[in-house]
Amino acid sequence: MQMNENGRVAVYPGSFDPPTLGHLDIIRRSAKQFDHVIVAVLNNTSKSPLFTLEERKEMLREITSDLPNVSIDSFRDLLVRFMKSRKASIIVRGIRSVTDFEYELTLASTNQLLDDEIETIFMMTNPKFSYLSSSIVKEIAMFGGPVHELVPAPIEHRLVEKYKAKQSNN
Amino acid sequence: MQMNENGRVAVYPGSFDPPTLGHLDIIRRSAKQFDHVIVAVLNNTSKSPLFTLEERKEMLREITSDLPNVSIDSFRDLLVRFMKSRKASIIVRGIRSVTDFEYELTLASTNQLLDDEIETIFMMTNPKFSYLSSSIVKEIAMFGGPVHELVPAPIEHRLVEKYKAKQSNN
Amino acid sequence: MQMNENGRVAVYPGSFDPPTLGHLDIIRRSAKQFDHVIVAVLNNTSKSPLFTLEERKEMLREITSDLPNVSIDSFRDLLVRFMKSRKASIIVRGIRSVTDFEYELTLASTNQLLDDEIETIFMMTNPKFSYLSSSIVKEIAMFGGPVHELVPAPIEHRLVEKYKAKQSNN
Amino acid sequence: MQMNENGRVAVYPGSFDPPTLGHLDIIRRSAKQFDHVIVAVLNNTSKSPLFTLEERKEMLREITSDLPNVSIDSFRDLLVRFMKSRKASIIVRGIRSVTDFEYELTLASTNQLLDDEIETIFMMTNPKFSYLSSSIVKEIAMFGGPVHELVPAPIEHRLVEKYKAKQSNN
Amino acid sequence: MQMNENGRVAVYPGSFDPPTLGHLDIIRRSAKQFDHVIVAVLNNTSKSPLFTLEERKEMLREITSDLPNVSIDSFRDLLVRFMKSRKASIIVRGIRSVTDFEYELTLASTNQLLDDEIETIFMMTNPKFSYLSSSIVKEIAMFGGPVHELVPAPIEHRLVEKYKAKQSNN
Amino acid sequence: MQMNENGRVAVYPGSFDPPTLGHLDIIRRSAKQFDHVIVAVLNNTSKSPLFTLEERKEMLREITSDLPNVSIDSFRDLLVRFMKSRKASIIVRGIRSVTDFEYELTLASTNQLLDDEIETIFMMTNPKFSYLSSSIVKEIAMFGGPVHELVPAPIEHRLVEKYKAKQSNN
Repeated sequence: MQMNENGRVAVYPGSFDPPTLGHLDIIRRSAKQFDHVIVAVLNNTSKSPLFTLEERKEMLREITSDLPNVSIDSFRDLLVRFMKSRKASIIVRGIRSVTDFEYELTLASTNQLLDDEIETIFMMTNPKFSYLSSSIVKEIAMFGGPVHELVPAPIEHRLVEKYKAKQSNN
Repeated sequence: MQMNENGRVAVYPGSFDPPTLGHLDIIRRSAKQFDHVIVAVLNNTSKSPLFTLEERKEMLREITSDLPNVSIDSFRDLLVRFMKSRKASIIVRGIRSVTDFEYELTLASTNQLLDDEIETIFMMTNPKFSYLSSSIVKEIAMFGGPVHELVPAPIEHRLVEKYKAKQSNN
Repeated sequence: MQMNENGRVAVYPGSFDPPTLGHLDIIRRSAKQFDHVIVAVLNNTSKSPLFTLEERKEMLREITSDLPNVSIDSFRDLLVRFMKSRKASIIVRGIRSVTDFEYELTLASTNQLLDDEIETIFMMTNPKFSYLSSSIVKEIAMFGGPVHELVPAPIEHRLVEKYKAKQSNN
Repeated sequence: MQMNENGRVAVYPGSFDPPTLGHLDIIRRSAKQFDHVIVAVLNNTSKSPLFTLEERKEMLREITSDLPNVSIDSFRDLLVRFMKSRKASIIVRGIRSVTDFEYELTLASTNQLLDDEIETIFMMTNPKFSYLSSSIVKEIAMFGGPVHELVPAPIEHRLVEKYKAKQSNN
Repeated sequence: MQMNENGRVAVYPGSFDPPTLGHLDIIRRSAKQFDHVIVAVLNNTSKSPLFTLEERKEMLREITSDLPNVSIDSFRDLLVRFMKSRKASIIVRGIRSVTDFEYELTLASTNQLLDDEIETIFMMTNPKFSYLSSSIVKEIAMFGGPVHELVPAPIEHRLVEKYKAKQSNN
Repeated sequence: MQMNENGRVAVYPGSFDPPTLGHLDIIRRSAKQFDHVIVAVLNNTSKSPLFTLEERKEMLREITSDLPNVSIDSFRDLLVRFMKSRKASIIVRGIRSVTDFEYELTLASTNQLLDDEIETIFMMTNPKFSYLSSSIVKEIAMFGGPVHELVPAPIEHRLVEKYKAKQSNN
């Protein structure tokens, strides 16, 4: 296993558009098990996210500010290249459902093929967040529904602002 | 449980673009189990349906005309708001497959979170319609294939007309 | 739909060896949606349950004593015959997982084949009880592990007594 | 079963954009079990493939040149019409996963409904290719990752050329 | 592919205790696609079947008597050895569900490992038999429920006789 | 996270009756990611294993002798108690399939309920071992089939001896 000056480094990749309580649960649990955790925001230029890359990184920094061994970063192309550059060899992923499981199996196999030093490690999402996703959060917020049980408090505020701004633009 | 002047009211939501024999099977079975069933057509303005909202409501009225305790309605944003306005607390959904099951679990959990008086109730799709969906019906009809075992007779006629009209427009 | 003097009657069948908080959640939610709910304990003579049929019925009576429209009963052979004798046409089942789903689909299809007036209606188990089963409760209790978050309080007491009695017999 | 002058004819339909080692594995195994195998490239005009229809047919011809009972063809609308025109009644499909399985079940049921002489026959994808798809191959190649364990050698070369050409166009 | 004097031989293995309409559907469809089909009854001495091996073979002979290219046989240990002795290289299996699918994937992989000339080919069970199994048939028949929509007519008669004989023995 | 004098300790529990190449793959990969790995053999007195507890521990010691940070141990009742006694907080489990996934989700949730310091971490089984299990190995070996691609070399030898001994006893 690769180690850098921080010891064992795990990477938790995702879109985080926006981060949910389910994401935060995985981040906290990973931070207990590994020396350092990098939350890596995917900068997918072909999709149009609700929040900019910079906003997503700010939100993640805000909700993980009490976790000293967690840092926020971003990547643009192949995850395995990003990992090599950060001397990290563990990918952490949460699994909620059977559909997730098969998709993740494909991703994990592909990443191992690209770099056989890479190990993907899965954590089960807490059952109470098993139905939760960034898409559902956005759909509820878009219609003005309550999201305070779905996202950390600072994210809730930003979601409300974002959709207000969108409406006044229309 | 909420009741309105009709007694126990169940809502069967969907796109119904167009209604299939699988949908009609669930409507008939729901109408036996509840005092009143509202078939609620989703008016999703971001998708471009084959049939207009008004056409879909007309088709549903036509194929349920023999069911006195079924009415046709439509909704635009959060389903739970529509239900409150109709004093309904039961959502009825058909499940065909494992993929359906996980998606429906997410929807049901989200709706209960938005309003914990809401109960989602599932019926298994009749096995002989287990592969059937509005998308498949449209794909077959588009190529002029036979759909009379897939949709009620009045819908078959409208599908043929719709694709004829489309072709003469091209 | 069949109705008896109590109106619409739903049957919730199971082994309930012992009843869990997951079972109680389904009973409470069913009691809101139907005029009367019969919790029907399967008297399967070929299995050796931990609790006798009479004990299981007592436990169910105890934990549903605040629900006036719930009654406790038992059946021995085909569920559909029991239902006919009680003038009930709705079976209620909880689903926790994909594995459950396929098994339940088989049961529901079989029951409908035996009596096409029978309708099986599914409720999703509350996600926080999604991993819970009578077997897991017994396995934990057998090793003296804590079960108070898994079963209603009166059941916890009986489980402890039961395993104490078993040990002093050995 | 229909037979033509070649005996029993099986059709293996797909997009093949591009063909992978997983596809080639199914082609080789089918060629052992049936008198003749037609690899039928779907000419879906509503999608924009990476490789043109002609390029995909060329690639398939190249990698199956050692298989005398395999021929390459294409179709545009309903698969069952294509099959009738070729006097073929067997569709061959590979299954990799549960998600595949449910999708294929739908396709097979639909095709049998359209023509009840049609039989769909499934082969399990070799476990070592279970995570492999044309989409994953394209995603890796787009970022310059290694694809030589994923596609036949002639395809690898074409992928590299294709993405080079794309980049110099941008 | 191996061929014997009958051409391409496929083997359809199972317990057939008793054969159902679902089994018969697969046998009929296989008989259309292959030159010869051997229905191979597993003689599993560690289980106690309802029908003896000889009874199961008789029932299969009776219900396939109109299919000239189907023969009935039995095997006792590794299926691949039986196949070699019969010069057969294709195993036919029906799949009803996701649970089936994963089990069958394991079997197919194991058999291919034991003999890499063996190919397992899957057919989807007709949706109207998707819930059907020999176990369900026996459970219904045991309680005197109707099985005429589940098994071929000659099997129904034998089931009734078998359970009558059992009861008079008790 | 708990640490003992060896640093971060992960436990890989199982029956290992016998250990397979799939198990060994998970052990090797875990040994790279954690400071110390305890392979913990379940001593389930209610089942009758092929190999005694002592034999299973010996086999595991033999095949992990080149891995200095792996040790072999056993446990009898609740896994979480064993872990506390060893100051370990990470459980490692391999997942092969959707069926595995749901079972493991239940186990992981139960263990976390019993001790919320416990974290279960999943690794995907290498696709080439996805169909492999101790049961399949035993079934093949019982009939004298080849197991050298399924188990480490020393285990193959012991399996052959074990079944020879069984036969001469009969």
